[in-house]
Amino acid sequence: MASAAATGVFVVPSECVVRRASPSSRLAASRTAIVSSSFHGKAVSSSLSLSTEVAALKAAESKGSRRRGHRALVVCKAGPDQRPIIIGLAADSGCGKSTFMRRLTSVFGGAASPPKGGNPDSNTLISDTTTVICLDDYHSLDRNGRKEKGVTALDPRANNFDLMYEQVKAIKEGKAIEKPIYNHVTGLLDPPERIEPPKIFVIEGLHPMFDERVRSLLDFSIYLDISDDVKFAWKIQRDMAERGHSLESIKASIAARKPDFDAFIDPQKQHADIVIQVLPTQLIPDDNEGKILRVRMIMKEGVKYFEPVYLYDEGSTISWIPCGRKLTCSYPGIKFFYGPDTYYGNEVSVLEMDGQFDKLDELIYVESHLSNISTKFYGEITQQMLKHADFPGSNNGTGLFQTIVGLKIRDVFERIVASEAASLESAKV
Amino acid sequence: MASAAATGVFVVPSECVVRRASPSSRLAASRTAIVSSSFHGKAVSSSLSLSTEVAALKAAESKGSRRRGHRALVVCKAGPDQRPIIIGLAADSGCGKSTFMRRLTSVFGGAASPPKGGNPDSNTLISDTTTVICLDDYHSLDRNGRKEKGVTALDPRANNFDLMYEQVKAIKEGKAIEKPIYNHVTGLLDPPERIEPPKIFVIEGLHPMFDERVRSLLDFSIYLDISDDVKFAWKIQRDMAERGHSLESIKASIAARKPDFDAFIDPQKQHADIVIQVLPTQLIPDDNEGKILRVRMIMKEGVKYFEPVYLYDEGSTISWIPCGRKLTCSYPGIKFFYGPDTYYGNEVSVLEMDGQFDKLDELIYVESHLSNISTKFYGEITQQMLKHADFPGSNNGTGLFQTIVGLKIRDVFERIVASEAASLESAKV
Repeated sequence: MASAAATGVFVVPSECVVRRASPSSRLAASRTAIVSSSFHGKAVSSSLSLSTEVAALKAAESKGSRRRGHRALVVCKAGPDQRPIIIGLAADSGCGKSTFMRRLTSVFGGAASPPKGGNPDSNTLISDTTTVICLDDYHSLDRNGRKEKGVTALDPRANNFDLMYEQVKAIKEGKAIEKPIYNHVTGLLDPPERIEPPKIFVIEGLHPMFDERVRSLLDFSIYLDISDDVKFAWKIQRDMAERGHSLESIKASIAARKPDFDAFIDPQKQHADIVIQVLPTQLIPDDNEGKILRVRMIMKEGVKYFEPVYLYDEGSTISWIPCGRKLTCSYPGIKFFYGPDTYYGNEVSVLEMDGQFDKLDELIYVESHLSNISTKFYGEITQQMLKHADFPGSNNGTGLFQTIVGLKIRDVFERIVASEAASLESAKV
Repeated sequence: MASAAATGVFVVPSECVVRRASPSSRLAASRTAIVSSSFHGKAVSSSLSLSTEVAALKAAESKGSRRRGHRALVVCKAGPDQRPIIIGLAADSGCGKSTFMRRLTSVFGGAASPPKGGNPDSNTLISDTTTVICLDDYHSLDRNGRKEKGVTALDPRANNFDLMYEQVKAIKEGKAIEKPIYNHVTGLLDPPERIEPPKIFVIEGLHPMFDERVRSLLDFSIYLDISDDVKFAWKIQRDMAERGHSLESIKASIAARKPDFDAFIDPQKQHADIVIQVLPTQLIPDDNEGKILRVRMIMKEGVKYFEPVYLYDEGSTISWIPCGRKLTCSYPGIKFFYGPDTYYGNEVSVLEMDGQFDKLDELIYVESHLSNISTKFYGEITQQMLKHADFPGSNNGTGLFQTIVGLKIRDVFERIVASEAASLESAKV
């Protein structure tokens, strides 16, 4: 390993083999890309017996890794110039061990954990392929500092975008960094941790698309757009139940954050390749419970290496209630919508799911009718959702769309690797 | 030919060849059934280039019968016991040279005309395969008789259901009949005309499903359900423009007919295998013009030899606006709906089209996404609609669904022939 530079950037020699992280180095750069030799993501005929499909999936699931071992994989011999791809994930609800990250790393076949032997309050999660950092680590002001200056964590003045840009750029160039840590427990800035460049580098937090320089480094970006009603219900769940806050203090904290949120966080939506909107259901009139969700995935058209998912007929407008003669669902059922739209002046495709899955039958039935989902085998979404049935949102659109985003990120990654390997090959000739 | 019986029933010797009608016999019973060797009615992939499809269709259309000559046909050797199939078509708007009949006979490849050399005011239409009679011919009271007794033509007392039953039964048994003629011009009952049993016998008019005995003879039945708004617009068009009636007299005639219509005609809907509802559009808010129509085809489930048409996913509920990225349409566009429902206690599937076609592109695009349409080659519906572009309704759901009903009747006919031929064959063994 090279020695640390003043900026906290390290140069890592690149190799073309998978290396396991040793306890001291925590993570070694792994340059072996996995590319599927064939694509089975196309929706299959609905004439297949549903019970047969479900039985086959259950059998596959019980076999676990043995089933996955059968997958046709091509080991990509990416050269030393193969760079990490950078994913931006904007989300208001804090960072940490997010469900999204666990779904993403699961798509790549690994499990995510904090850096071994480091700061126990690190916000970073690392798996074989993917490292996720929390952008709260780039706070320039700690909790006391923000209090003194009267700014929220949402305010750009509480964040160091110069360092964020410099370090994300370094990772993209294959260099290790010494990234600060913002300690959510103490509210203080802890000593930095060393981050090696992974295959996929996810920057998650409040401002991944705020700074134009950082934004220009992103290969793909996602914005999680939780509606105020749902956000409130979730905050109560987390902050009251888990952190012991009072209802009044939660309301006050949401109200206090609102102006800065609208000024600095919300406008990032327009730059995202995918926006996931989480709204209350429309299946139950005047529903206030917020337990059943309507989730919309807004996918930008014309993004390199990314084709939006569609339902039945690409580019037309469809609403679909799958529950009917072939599929029975309990109240209030499930409703999908798909269609073209414009979003902040960009052409987009929208896929929406309202309601929740009761049974595996419903999930595989829905998966079989979606196209461009970038799965490697029939039922991969259903298998992923089953594997993490205990994660929040596994029975609704949040889990479904997070899983699809995971598959899409894998696809973007593999296409970039393949494209760069190809151009490298042609450069040699 | 056998001699006339007192009841007006003739026995026709059955043969297994196509016979051309001579001027004196008008129509000879033709017993050669055409059965397709393979079915290409399945919706094809939407990934086909639309312009390529349209070009191919246009080329096929210009070649005319040569194109049809390429179709793979199996000549069914139906024995002498092959009986005519009986179709009931209930419609309020009078009989005569209906567009529906012309679409139906066109599906079978022939043209329909009144019996040659007979009463010029005959209501009957005859083609190679099909004879359509108008049930007004079974009026027991002429115009004066109805006036004297104060009953409308809708009233069962103005109609002879005993004779209707007897003669339809005779045709079903392969016997010719001497059917009365109701002269719409004079309002009088003219001397009867001789009707030979055809392959397909359509009884069209006010009461095909009213009498239980007649109803039990039907192999397939259709009810044309025109909403009051649309009926009024059509009546004005026909009775004012073509027959010189005044607006007031049309309104009065509709009001006078209403009680009997509701009592005797409308309830037949519940017995129909297919109901075609014609309603004003919902695409234009508060539309009063009645030029753009919303047409619904309500198809009974569980009918022998008949599988309802579906859109995308059989048994689920879908709304579809095909106009979008791949297909552009002018205002107010086209909207489809498909889904299961119940209708008079029966399980049904509903297919709905709102709006109208501007261009051939739109029609073939829609056809390619429908399933169970019983076509014999890709684009057959579009070809039929093009061929009769001058018929009323060729650019909307009435023409589309009439054409589909024609294909379905052909399918029912061929399946009955095949099934009866098979059981005859097995009886011999």
